[in-house]
Amino acid sequence: MPGSMRALRKTAPRAGAELVEIPVPEPGEGEVLIRVHAASICGTDLNIYDCNEWAQKRISRLPMTGGHEVAGAGEARVTEVHHLEPGAFVAAETHIACGRCTTCRTGRAHICENLRILGIDVEGAFAEYLVIPAGNAWVVGEGIHADAASIMEPFGNAVHAAFGTSGGEDIATNAVAVIGCGPIGLFAVSIARSLGAWKVIAVEPNDHRRAMAGSMGADLLVDPGGVDPVEAVMEATNGSGAEVVLEMSGNAGAIGQGTRMLARGGRMSLLGLPDGPVSLDLNDQVIFKEARLQGITGREMFRTWQQTTTLLSTGRVDVAPVITHRFPMERFEEAFATTASGRSGKVILLLEE
Amino acid sequence: MPGSMRALRKTAPRAGAELVEIPVPEPGEGEVLIRVHAASICGTDLNIYDCNEWAQKRISRLPMTGGHEVAGAGEARVTEVHHLEPGAFVAAETHIACGRCTTCRTGRAHICENLRILGIDVEGAFAEYLVIPAGNAWVVGEGIHADAASIMEPFGNAVHAAFGTSGGEDIATNAVAVIGCGPIGLFAVSIARSLGAWKVIAVEPNDHRRAMAGSMGADLLVDPGGVDPVEAVMEATNGSGAEVVLEMSGNAGAIGQGTRMLARGGRMSLLGLPDGPVSLDLNDQVIFKEARLQGITGREMFRTWQQTTTLLSTGRVDVAPVITHRFPMERFEEAFATTASGRSGKVILLLEE
Amino acid sequence: MPGSMRALRKTAPRAGAELVEIPVPEPGEGEVLIRVHAASICGTDLNIYDCNEWAQKRISRLPMTGGHEVAGAGEARVTEVHHLEPGAFVAAETHIACGRCTTCRTGRAHICENLRILGIDVEGAFAEYLVIPAGNAWVVGEGIHADAASIMEPFGNAVHAAFGTSGGEDIATNAVAVIGCGPIGLFAVSIARSLGAWKVIAVEPNDHRRAMAGSMGADLLVDPGGVDPVEAVMEATNGSGAEVVLEMSGNAGAIGQGTRMLARGGRMSLLGLPDGPVSLDLNDQVIFKEARLQGITGREMFRTWQQTTTLLSTGRVDVAPVITHRFPMERFEEAFATTASGRSGKVILLLEE
Amino acid sequence: MPGSMRALRKTAPRAGAELVEIPVPEPGEGEVLIRVHAASICGTDLNIYDCNEWAQKRISRLPMTGGHEVAGAGEARVTEVHHLEPGAFVAAETHIACGRCTTCRTGRAHICENLRILGIDVEGAFAEYLVIPAGNAWVVGEGIHADAASIMEPFGNAVHAAFGTSGGEDIATNAVAVIGCGPIGLFAVSIARSLGAWKVIAVEPNDHRRAMAGSMGADLLVDPGGVDPVEAVMEATNGSGAEVVLEMSGNAGAIGQGTRMLARGGRMSLLGLPDGPVSLDLNDQVIFKEARLQGITGREMFRTWQQTTTLLSTGRVDVAPVITHRFPMERFEEAFATTASGRSGKVILLLEE
Repeated sequence: MPGSMRALRKTAPRAGAELVEIPVPEPGEGEVLIRVHAASICGTDLNIYDCNEWAQKRISRLPMTGGHEVAGAGEARVTEVHHLEPGAFVAAETHIACGRCTTCRTGRAHICENLRILGIDVEGAFAEYLVIPAGNAWVVGEGIHADAASIMEPFGNAVHAAFGTSGGEDIATNAVAVIGCGPIGLFAVSIARSLGAWKVIAVEPNDHRRAMAGSMGADLLVDPGGVDPVEAVMEATNGSGAEVVLEMSGNAGAIGQGTRMLARGGRMSLLGLPDGPVSLDLNDQVIFKEARLQGITGREMFRTWQQTTTLLSTGRVDVAPVITHRFPMERFEEAFATTASGRSGKVILLLEE
Repeated sequence: MPGSMRALRKTAPRAGAELVEIPVPEPGEGEVLIRVHAASICGTDLNIYDCNEWAQKRISRLPMTGGHEVAGAGEARVTEVHHLEPGAFVAAETHIACGRCTTCRTGRAHICENLRILGIDVEGAFAEYLVIPAGNAWVVGEGIHADAASIMEPFGNAVHAAFGTSGGEDIATNAVAVIGCGPIGLFAVSIARSLGAWKVIAVEPNDHRRAMAGSMGADLLVDPGGVDPVEAVMEATNGSGAEVVLEMSGNAGAIGQGTRMLARGGRMSLLGLPDGPVSLDLNDQVIFKEARLQGITGREMFRTWQQTTTLLSTGRVDVAPVITHRFPMERFEEAFATTASGRSGKVILLLEE
Repeated sequence: MPGSMRALRKTAPRAGAELVEIPVPEPGEGEVLIRVHAASICGTDLNIYDCNEWAQKRISRLPMTGGHEVAGAGEARVTEVHHLEPGAFVAAETHIACGRCTTCRTGRAHICENLRILGIDVEGAFAEYLVIPAGNAWVVGEGIHADAASIMEPFGNAVHAAFGTSGGEDIATNAVAVIGCGPIGLFAVSIARSLGAWKVIAVEPNDHRRAMAGSMGADLLVDPGGVDPVEAVMEATNGSGAEVVLEMSGNAGAIGQGTRMLARGGRMSLLGLPDGPVSLDLNDQVIFKEARLQGITGREMFRTWQQTTTLLSTGRVDVAPVITHRFPMERFEEAFATTASGRSGKVILLLEE
Repeated sequence: MPGSMRALRKTAPRAGAELVEIPVPEPGEGEVLIRVHAASICGTDLNIYDCNEWAQKRISRLPMTGGHEVAGAGEARVTEVHHLEPGAFVAAETHIACGRCTTCRTGRAHICENLRILGIDVEGAFAEYLVIPAGNAWVVGEGIHADAASIMEPFGNAVHAAFGTSGGEDIATNAVAVIGCGPIGLFAVSIARSLGAWKVIAVEPNDHRRAMAGSMGADLLVDPGGVDPVEAVMEATNGSGAEVVLEMSGNAGAIGQGTRMLARGGRMSLLGLPDGPVSLDLNDQVIFKEARLQGITGREMFRTWQQTTTLLSTGRVDVAPVITHRFPMERFEEAFATTASGRSGKVILLLEE
């Protein structure tokens, strides 16, 4: 193992990042060193790269390596409980939980009270090597391409949103609307289709992404710039509305539309992060309809990972159309520009040569 | 049976009501005539009595008899499926469902797409006789005082809010905050106590009602005019927050506070009706916490009624402290004034002499 | 409408049935007269036809028209709640519930305490006309062939077994074993596939039926006469077992195997009816594994019917391979012989000429 | 810390045990050394002490220290994730899970595929010092007496059985039958009472234990030697049966009775371990009633512990009447004899002088 490695680091509170040579990190007790194969770029990474308002507040120390969607090979045997074999190819759960707070101890580590996140609170994945707690390493298994393994993390977001916090039995045979078709929304379209939805309705203003939603199995594509998405969903559902709405856009107006397209007794998973407070018509759209709004973050550890593995390894869901670009690490500027372009799906940085 | 009866009717779109003599209604096919024993006054009745803005929009025909919280004796045998015996003492479910829409046919008649409500859409209960669909009559059974039977309907609201739409297993051993301690909130306090809550925290600015919440079993009384209710709940729960919030106030600010006092993974039942749109911090209070917000309306037909019957008939919950006033029908003006005073619990009109 | 009709009736407690001319029945209050288009033959019908031990005990009056899987056109407008239009093409829910017992009133009419069943307790469907409660008529809707509509009832059994009593979210991404591949088992195979199961494993000794299970989408076909089905399931699931077992055989030995092939924390839906008591290893197969066994009967009224409609009308499930034979009514002997042959799927009697 | 300690050890495959001096065990990585305060005696301990048929098969190595219901003080700071402070008073979860199998990784460690149990598979708690994985130590907290903390483990069994695998919302307002009133059954009686059951019916042949069930809050005491418990439950529930049956006896006949006293749609938690296969009438008692049978073992890690802590620390449940005997360690023979007598509740060995 080399003593140093290349890492894409944020060195100052301004836009951009630097590809620098730093020491390979040392795993501590209960940790594992990963030889990173690929890391994909998430909207959060773009926010940090651009150093937007949110990033300026949220990122507390510099320099810092970004990136959290990652897969690679474990470098050594982890001898304690997790028994990772040397060379095991793993993807990383990016929520690093404390393991001792109430939510952790009651099986909900993904909403840990002391949560730290890879690439935001601790050194991230845009580097040749990465250290994570051994328990955060998920063995990828057969049937999932190494390049695609890094997207298990955002795919898991979509899986968790689809199953929701009440089980997800409401997807099958019901109408499902997906609002916002970035990569997670696109994954959600295909997952809802795979779980037996009656109709999957994709709502997305970007023509390119809306077309991708069609490739991923949406039955109806709605351009909210052209038609009223609430009317479109009502029409497609004989006036009943969608039993499930998966909100991936974080757009305040779209969230309100989501509540209005929801059927009586329906469920909306909220995953997209709005910029500020959101005004909702609770009376008519939530209370009288007995609608349920559920916050969704991260992935259930590790039920969601198991579901993700099954969906991807069996080919029930094919994510190939979503993975639109691959770049070697040194072309990171192009990779971020492509991610920002609105004409890409998922963009992957390849860390191994 | 007499040919005519006294009824408290709204005759014109202005404040007040008139006690008039009108014909006793005739039950149609599948309906039952009830000799009304008592009817209690709800906030909605007060809104209609006062002819406020909401009532002016919502009440579509006049003259109209108000009232929907009611109990009395069935006057005749209903020969078809329901087999009510003559003289059976019943309370009325006030949600009159169509029975044929999707929500009705899938066991959720209380959110029927064609819902009509007693005393709002059809002739109500402030009268000596009342006609309701036989299926809406719930035999009160032993152990519940005739005067108290009319409050089974609002008590059922509180039961439904407490159990929520996911089962209600989260009440037992957990912290429960009840926001707003009008009669339904007061019932909710006692129900949460009866279902094994760890701590029941009542949030209510009105001193009189807050004291009543203490009588109903609240462990902690919080005056939101004096202290920050979010801080009070956090302090009482070792910083975790309440796993369950039962929102009975309809106050926009209080709803926001409700989300902030909610524990990670917690559940808020929304029953109180706000005046307009409500602005919520979805990111920090819903999404990152994976909180669940559930609209609650009416009562599950008729699971909630069975639960209500058990809680009341066994004395698990004693509603006597909440029933503060009884008036004969002709003193209706005093009854409505008392309801509006903020110094009463539930006010009951006695229709039988 | 003619005054008399042909009906296939059991006239004496011995094998067989007679095609006789009897008066067209008169619908009572709340009932609807159906012009029967097609009725399919169920194992129960065969038991009654053969007059086996069970039938001798269960059938309490003769003469009696058998049959309960049925679809046809409503002959008149039903003016009360259900608003069936004249000529509406409907399938019949065969569980006739009392509507007033505790289970009915709490939304579980399919396990009514006073349940009567079409073709067993009341006059059945092997006749040109049939009377059922209007509430038991389900409008078939577009996309389902008239000949296939009669199988919505047994298909609904399979849907209800798959979703189970806890929601059915455990089908998606999990291994599902279906034991017994008569028509309901075959339907279950395709439903599990449609709901996103990881692997669907069909266990069936009859070669013909096992091959049909392959056509319906089973990933693995197991002949319990040739291999140990428990071992086969364990091998196919990396030693974990099936998270869901759908028991359709009613075979005591197979039920025991079902518990042994069940994964830790797994769920077994029991639908097949064993001949007598069944001996189970509760310690190792239920308690230490925290397995859940659920009895399944009938269909949720009418959530299951809606799910059934969606699955069939959208083509998510294609039942055509299961419907192997159609006979006109007068060839009923051939139809029953075919059903008994073990070389058929579903056999349909066509009642209209 | 002393180099050696007293331990009650099974040294040979015959009845009894020996109090011997052995080295104090050394905690390994991720483990904690507990200075045992008290350990209570379970039926399993008695089986091992008596060296019955089950114990002869199950106990794989000798000599071995028994005991698993235990509480005491942690001897040192555990520096990694669990951050136990030195001297923290803890109770032990006795299911030692591997942390890496599918059930562990999906949040169900209590049914781990590689489960080891304290006092059976690894050195147990009848000793002055005990080593357990740090993650198995549950900080007891305020409000629970040190002597009573050792019963949190069997109390947790009862809590888990009461909540069941589906949430436990069916306890509140429903009839609950508890079959078998050893300590776990007695705990279950009080838990069901605390969770708002309508009626708690205790079925127990031993007069002494049945009387204790009355002290713990049972509404009806049934002696199955004197009356038919199925009839007794039916009579107490107006013929409907118990919505929940908590089976704690492991008696095959009683399990069958449990299914027969179960209401339609009811749930039976199976915790008691029968001696051999159990014959059940699946048709009438499970399938047609849509009953649910759930295996229950251990405690959810650690949701059940949190619920247990709340119930005990707040005094919602008072276990004092169940803790009938305390013995110093050297009087172990008397302690085991008392446990076997049928005239005791929980018997506690005090390990500290």
